[in-house]
Amino acid sequence: MTTDTIHIGYDDLVSLLERIFTRNGVSSANARILAENCAGCERDGSLSHGIFRMPGYVSSLKSGWVDGQAVPEVEDVGPAFVRVHANGGFTQPAFFAARKRVMEKVRETGVCVLAIRRSHHFSALWPDVEPFADEGFVALTVVNSMACVVPHGGKTAVFGTNPIAFASPRDGTFPFVFDQASSAIAHGDVQIAAREDHDLKPGMGVDSNGQPTTDPKAILNGGALLPFGGHKGNSIALMVEILSAALTGGYFSGEFDWSGHKGAQTPYTGQFFIVIDPDRGGDGSFAHRVSQICDLVLEAGQDRLPGERRHATRAKAAEAGIPLSAKNHEMLLALADG
Amino acid sequence: MTTDTIHIGYDDLVSLLERIFTRNGVSSANARILAENCAGCERDGSLSHGIFRMPGYVSSLKSGWVDGQAVPEVEDVGPAFVRVHANGGFTQPAFFAARKRVMEKVRETGVCVLAIRRSHHFSALWPDVEPFADEGFVALTVVNSMACVVPHGGKTAVFGTNPIAFASPRDGTFPFVFDQASSAIAHGDVQIAAREDHDLKPGMGVDSNGQPTTDPKAILNGGALLPFGGHKGNSIALMVEILSAALTGGYFSGEFDWSGHKGAQTPYTGQFFIVIDPDRGGDGSFAHRVSQICDLVLEAGQDRLPGERRHATRAKAAEAGIPLSAKNHEMLLALADG
Repeated sequence: MTTDTIHIGYDDLVSLLERIFTRNGVSSANARILAENCAGCERDGSLSHGIFRMPGYVSSLKSGWVDGQAVPEVEDVGPAFVRVHANGGFTQPAFFAARKRVMEKVRETGVCVLAIRRSHHFSALWPDVEPFADEGFVALTVVNSMACVVPHGGKTAVFGTNPIAFASPRDGTFPFVFDQASSAIAHGDVQIAAREDHDLKPGMGVDSNGQPTTDPKAILNGGALLPFGGHKGNSIALMVEILSAALTGGYFSGEFDWSGHKGAQTPYTGQFFIVIDPDRGGDGSFAHRVSQICDLVLEAGQDRLPGERRHATRAKAAEAGIPLSAKNHEMLLALADG
Repeated sequence: MTTDTIHIGYDDLVSLLERIFTRNGVSSANARILAENCAGCERDGSLSHGIFRMPGYVSSLKSGWVDGQAVPEVEDVGPAFVRVHANGGFTQPAFFAARKRVMEKVRETGVCVLAIRRSHHFSALWPDVEPFADEGFVALTVVNSMACVVPHGGKTAVFGTNPIAFASPRDGTFPFVFDQASSAIAHGDVQIAAREDHDLKPGMGVDSNGQPTTDPKAILNGGALLPFGGHKGNSIALMVEILSAALTGGYFSGEFDWSGHKGAQTPYTGQFFIVIDPDRGGDGSFAHRVSQICDLVLEAGQDRLPGERRHATRAKAAEAGIPLSAKNHEMLLALADG
């Protein structure tokens, strides 16, 4: 085994990941969508949702917890409302099955809601919203996950990490996009702190008795995370449960039961979108105005906008290919052919 | 002057506030809307937006900064999109001018966007969204205000306190509603800390050099507030600017110029709403499901839901009347008749 880094083209990485998905029971249509999503995360340096996730995808598929062959059912339930039953498959194929109709409705009415249920989301949210902004739309999406976050002041986990992502076009450059968990910290960062044996900042999590702790091992050993920003982040996390599960007809983060599926890792919940045509609101200068406010925050001293580093990484990958450690490359080859 | 507390009925308080508004140049239609809004805040114990604000309303009206006679122009710009030019008046009359049409559109299409511009919002947001939830709809609204919040890592104020409010029906009880600033702390709380000469918790604000401080006087003396929850709250604050100003065609929080209007206190910006028919998403059990997740967070140990205290205070006021200190009552009488 070598420790060198190889560089792989986006299309080649997509093909390799596709092979892994199809080999593990995913239909070819679904495999293509999932492979592009995962390769896009790796390309953008969004590594916690890149190829790092492939063993989890495979494990979940093998467990029978998620149906790789699922054919989503799209229902038109209003001039500005689409809903999808994902039939126990991944969210992204359900989303792609509805995406074109959603955009047609936004163009027609000015806004559209998309509610996806009975779906597994195991990736980042920015890949779902950024393409809407590329088309000139504003998009907001939320997804709940698996219970690992205690409510503010509470002792037992109810919420998932419950991310919220927002995308908006800007003039002359890539869209403004953020994608952030409503937990104070990512689970992966707690694991790293535990491995490196250093304490966390206060306010990140609680131990198994629901008491605040800075010890990452206490959080991992029966404890839970806290919402970001105290009671305000807590309200955001609860709103995400309401929109992603109550409104879509999906499961809450603490509700689904995967105990019969050893190896299952994917949260089985719902996802909610709002997509808006922003140019109906003002005087047609929307993208220009978003550029202005983004410039203002940078002039005020904010070091960078969310998504900036990602787009810089994407640009590098377009020139030099996507860097993969030889170890990770071998891991992928083993999953594809082993 | 006495220090006793008097109790006043809601209708009597509305009449008294109406008199103050009309006396200061507000049209009778607009005065009624503003008086009900302000009396409702006082009734619910939402005191920072109750009669405490009346001197600010009067001062802003006298300065010529806000037009009490403004007639809002409602434009239907799509099957699911309404926009309103408030013509330099308060937001609430502009909102009420469009509210019925927005609800018709939600019933027709499943969702509606409302974009209000050139408007002054000087109250809480929950009175705007809670009535939608009473009708069975989910509503989200955001408003920007005046620059007093530095971006995360920045040194000069760009954002307003930029609140976000969300309302959702629940089964058998008042709606789930939150209404929270995207700043770490309210300006009023900094003023109280300065008066009582105690330090703030870290992370609330910066001094005039943009350096973090726990000294409330340093924040008030040329400093600024910070967003709640670090870079994540910062993203929310920026999203609020984009939706409330860029999308509506209104001003950013740091953009309007009131220097020619001595006594002006009302932010001249825009307000954005999304109103959704939640029952199109799932199986018709939406309100029941929201009750379930609210019960779950309380069972997990969260001490209360946002809005609970407000509804308890409202119930008390319905029985005993709205408590006013004699001093505040005299202040109102002076504004109405003096």
